[in-house]
Amino acid sequence: MSLLHQPHHDGSPLFVSNEAPALGETVTVLVRTHAEDAPVEGMWLRTTYDAEPVFVEMHPSAAGATTWWEAGLLVHNPVTHYRFLIERSDGSQEWLTGAGLAGHDVPDAADFRLTAYPPAPDWGRDAVVYQVFPDRFARSAAADAREVPDWALATEWDDEVAFEPDDPRTPMQFFGGDLDGITEHLDHVADVGADVVYTTPVFPGESNHRYNATTFTAVDPLLGGDEAYARLSAAVHSRGWRILGDLTTNHTGDTHEWFLSAVDDPADPHRSFYYFDDDGTYACWMGHGTLPKINHADRDVRHAMVEGPDSVVGRWLRPPYDVDGWRIDVANMTGRLGAVDVNHEVARAVRATAEALRPDPWVIGEHNHDATGDVDGDGWHGTMNYSGFSWPVWSWLRDPASPARAFGRPVPVARRDGTAVVETFRAWQGTLGWRATESSWNILGSHDSARIRTVVGGDAAVHRVAAGLQFTLPGVPMVFAGDEIGLEGVTGEDARRTMPWHRRDEWDARTLGAYADLAALRRGHVALRRGGLRWAHVDADTIAFLREHPDGSVLVVARRSAGEAFDLPLPPGRHLFGSEPGGADLAARDDTGVEVAAADGPRLDVWELDPR
Amino acid sequence: MSLLHQPHHDGSPLFVSNEAPALGETVTVLVRTHAEDAPVEGMWLRTTYDAEPVFVEMHPSAAGATTWWEAGLLVHNPVTHYRFLIERSDGSQEWLTGAGLAGHDVPDAADFRLTAYPPAPDWGRDAVVYQVFPDRFARSAAADAREVPDWALATEWDDEVAFEPDDPRTPMQFFGGDLDGITEHLDHVADVGADVVYTTPVFPGESNHRYNATTFTAVDPLLGGDEAYARLSAAVHSRGWRILGDLTTNHTGDTHEWFLSAVDDPADPHRSFYYFDDDGTYACWMGHGTLPKINHADRDVRHAMVEGPDSVVGRWLRPPYDVDGWRIDVANMTGRLGAVDVNHEVARAVRATAEALRPDPWVIGEHNHDATGDVDGDGWHGTMNYSGFSWPVWSWLRDPASPARAFGRPVPVARRDGTAVVETFRAWQGTLGWRATESSWNILGSHDSARIRTVVGGDAAVHRVAAGLQFTLPGVPMVFAGDEIGLEGVTGEDARRTMPWHRRDEWDARTLGAYADLAALRRGHVALRRGGLRWAHVDADTIAFLREHPDGSVLVVARRSAGEAFDLPLPPGRHLFGSEPGGADLAARDDTGVEVAAADGPRLDVWELDPR
Repeated sequence: MSLLHQPHHDGSPLFVSNEAPALGETVTVLVRTHAEDAPVEGMWLRTTYDAEPVFVEMHPSAAGATTWWEAGLLVHNPVTHYRFLIERSDGSQEWLTGAGLAGHDVPDAADFRLTAYPPAPDWGRDAVVYQVFPDRFARSAAADAREVPDWALATEWDDEVAFEPDDPRTPMQFFGGDLDGITEHLDHVADVGADVVYTTPVFPGESNHRYNATTFTAVDPLLGGDEAYARLSAAVHSRGWRILGDLTTNHTGDTHEWFLSAVDDPADPHRSFYYFDDDGTYACWMGHGTLPKINHADRDVRHAMVEGPDSVVGRWLRPPYDVDGWRIDVANMTGRLGAVDVNHEVARAVRATAEALRPDPWVIGEHNHDATGDVDGDGWHGTMNYSGFSWPVWSWLRDPASPARAFGRPVPVARRDGTAVVETFRAWQGTLGWRATESSWNILGSHDSARIRTVVGGDAAVHRVAAGLQFTLPGVPMVFAGDEIGLEGVTGEDARRTMPWHRRDEWDARTLGAYADLAALRRGHVALRRGGLRWAHVDADTIAFLREHPDGSVLVVARRSAGEAFDLPLPPGRHLFGSEPGGADLAARDDTGVEVAAADGPRLDVWELDPR
Repeated sequence: MSLLHQPHHDGSPLFVSNEAPALGETVTVLVRTHAEDAPVEGMWLRTTYDAEPVFVEMHPSAAGATTWWEAGLLVHNPVTHYRFLIERSDGSQEWLTGAGLAGHDVPDAADFRLTAYPPAPDWGRDAVVYQVFPDRFARSAAADAREVPDWALATEWDDEVAFEPDDPRTPMQFFGGDLDGITEHLDHVADVGADVVYTTPVFPGESNHRYNATTFTAVDPLLGGDEAYARLSAAVHSRGWRILGDLTTNHTGDTHEWFLSAVDDPADPHRSFYYFDDDGTYACWMGHGTLPKINHADRDVRHAMVEGPDSVVGRWLRPPYDVDGWRIDVANMTGRLGAVDVNHEVARAVRATAEALRPDPWVIGEHNHDATGDVDGDGWHGTMNYSGFSWPVWSWLRDPASPARAFGRPVPVARRDGTAVVETFRAWQGTLGWRATESSWNILGSHDSARIRTVVGGDAAVHRVAAGLQFTLPGVPMVFAGDEIGLEGVTGEDARRTMPWHRRDEWDARTLGAYADLAALRRGHVALRRGGLRWAHVDADTIAFLREHPDGSVLVVARRSAGEAFDLPLPPGRHLFGSEPGGADLAARDDTGVEVAAADGPRLDVWELDPR
């Protein structure tokens, strides 16, 4: 039996009549089953009202070999859980949850969810995000005139990046990229096909990454200052694009004005902003004394940092800086320390502040781990989806001999077959939930991780398969600047290599073209932005899936190596994209399906399916 | 390879140096691996501090074919999550979580947990609980003199119980059992081997179940009133036993004094105790207007009901009533309604009130569903474990032709093989966590469900297998009065049949003896109360497991039907219990193991293993 014949539901429009319901609204939810699967005797929607299970009988309507089962789901709680109980004609039972089918009782962790809080803005869900690390992206002419500060180590644009943790140069190497440099290269961002510019921090900090801010009231003069930021923001907006800031709510630098004022004076009003003990020691990020942790249980710091138009969060959302939202650094730890957990209050405050100042802000919380429960409410709209996207993609495509180092664990992610990788996708999409998955960032890497090109052992074709998954699986593609031209990096620090603007011959133009084509493809096909997800065919080296939408559906077939042809019970389709030369339309094999052609190496193809 | 050779950890003393650590304490955690499994290259403890993953390398020490891997786990958060990353010599990786081994990345839902809140009291964890439904257990002589109230339908002790939902007699049949009746039959409770008496509600309510209280300030005179309760409590305590009350914090009856005072007067001080709309309608339990829902967001009702020595919770914990704790009815819904969720505050208040009044109270929250997250903190110590115990046991042992109706779902739990059933146990033990599982009630049924005897189609031998699992799997056995003598019931209401004290010939004395033996066995072997759990052998009809403890370990083999002999890599052992005649000591087959003998039908056996 084909995977496509299994019972299916997801949070997309084909299966849910309203993805953004109000509290108290009744939404129609549907499950599709197929005649070639084991016969279904009955089906029930099971939801929980105030943690009490409630069952609603579903009603079938057959449409050819497909049957649609339907029931009304009352959105009783702000985050309403639900799943389906399927009774087969042989008396066996299965649960259908966000993680797929289970032949025995399973806890609620992977239940489907409908959320009565407003969703992420459309522009965010439709975006292609381009991440810029300012020190390494581009220097404007003005950069040459700036004096290098005492803490920094002036470094030439073409010099190698120091990245070993014990190398003192790692945080100090100063390449001098600036904001006008970004503004001058927006045409390149357009070439990639992105429409949201996200820069890592622009506040001054005594490091090249600036995650150790010394103030939140001004843009770093080394980057061109407030005016340069306003110029960048205006230029981005003039293209109809959006811009996102990066704010560390979890900690400041130990050179931050608040901290300096507080550290020597227990009576200082900023003292309560941090966790000082009586002996003057203080809590900090992962034991790093240079990064004192913010105490969000304190009303004053919450007001200064996240609440209201004059808070740090608020100030930069207003003209002339006009950021359209924030990526919140270390969002997972923010407001959490030992027995204290006000994380949700902080997230809610950030979002509320943004919503009071802008019609459609977007707030993404960094979480390199399991963001379940943090992202389907009224706080962060989504996360940087390392766990649910990056690691499964890496594990499928990594070259075992790659020098790329692990991110967030002591050993690299093991290379795994497609079946295990799809189980991983299912598990994370199930717990994170459909909306949070769709509103989170599909990243192949970032300034914090090895580069995908290095992970795949430098194989450009495999890199393009990874990029293809980034643009076609549910989630918003976020491209770390340089990935599109094949830059490498074995760690996050090494990944912060400078853009070789003057060495175009080193660019992987074919991969750049693939990114642009994928961005256009995503923009042109609503199924890739809002469609459901059904796994169509999975084996060790092949992952094929449908993105389905009432306005058209696409088939994606990813191969990590050469593979045989296989059949799918689908209508014919028009070839839209191939990451390698070749690729033809899907022709009908017979009444019941099509044949996906064999592949002679890694490639990813996308077809638009004929309506039927 | 034997299941016993797989990497293993659980929350028991062999694997955790302190099950009840303080916040900030470092606890040693261990994983055992075996030489006959695929070689392990390295292992890491992964915990999360403030939601950030942290890895700690583990150090191996070999002891024969077994290797113990060890690391220090800092209990950084009140509920500290952890799991293990195992790297095999072939480069593959597995996670070990509370749900077992996973060959791909999985979210945190089933992480192991260590909790810095105090655990359930020892007497609770060591208990055998006997549940009494007062109207149906026993009548004292005084009962004959009492006048039957207007709402009630006087019913003879030997009459059949009406139980159909649409039969108006169902809640009205009044059999007249009372508290002195219980006191007079404590010798029977002793015969079963129980040492905690838990009665369903004793407050007056206009129904035979009394879950629709009219007051919380007095014991129902129909049960003998306050004095009878004090007599029962004293008699229970004089045996060195404990007594638990049953309190509905979620709702009252619509004849409750608070509600009557509030319903017609919007200015009444009790008005805020409930969720009244402006038009006088009010929230109630599952749409039943007779059960108005308590508004725990209101300070006044919280004070009246759960906070402080004069609250309902507090009052009955004090002499002369002296209850040792509470079973909280509908604990899952308490304090939850739509966008409001103060459930945790209510649970915390109940426990804090109890802890302020008694040295070692026990608080169990009813949850017929997924109590994950509600039971490992500072609220309920445990739950009535339907999901993690009852349903998997039912699904393994049920007779497909049984008339027993489903509880909590529209179709009965499907009959499933041992492998699926053990996966179910793993899934629920993983998400609920070790401590909560161990402190929750293993129930084969209750006043709310069909009786196990009916579920298994009346087969006494299969019933005894179920009882054996109840007393040997982690968790506290709670026996619904009458199960031990083979009473039947197709629904919860039907299960409320009267105890046939005067028809001893109808008792299943052999099953009663098995309960007594199992209770003594549990009391005599710390491994059954505090030991770890390792699955030893699982097939469709056989479930075998170890309960391991530094002071001795036992092997349990449950068979739902006849089955072949099989080998286990274990030391010899002494036969302690057989649910059916026969059963011999486990003799060494060779250097590496023992043979478990074939069985000619359903049976459960327990052996004490020789130390080695």
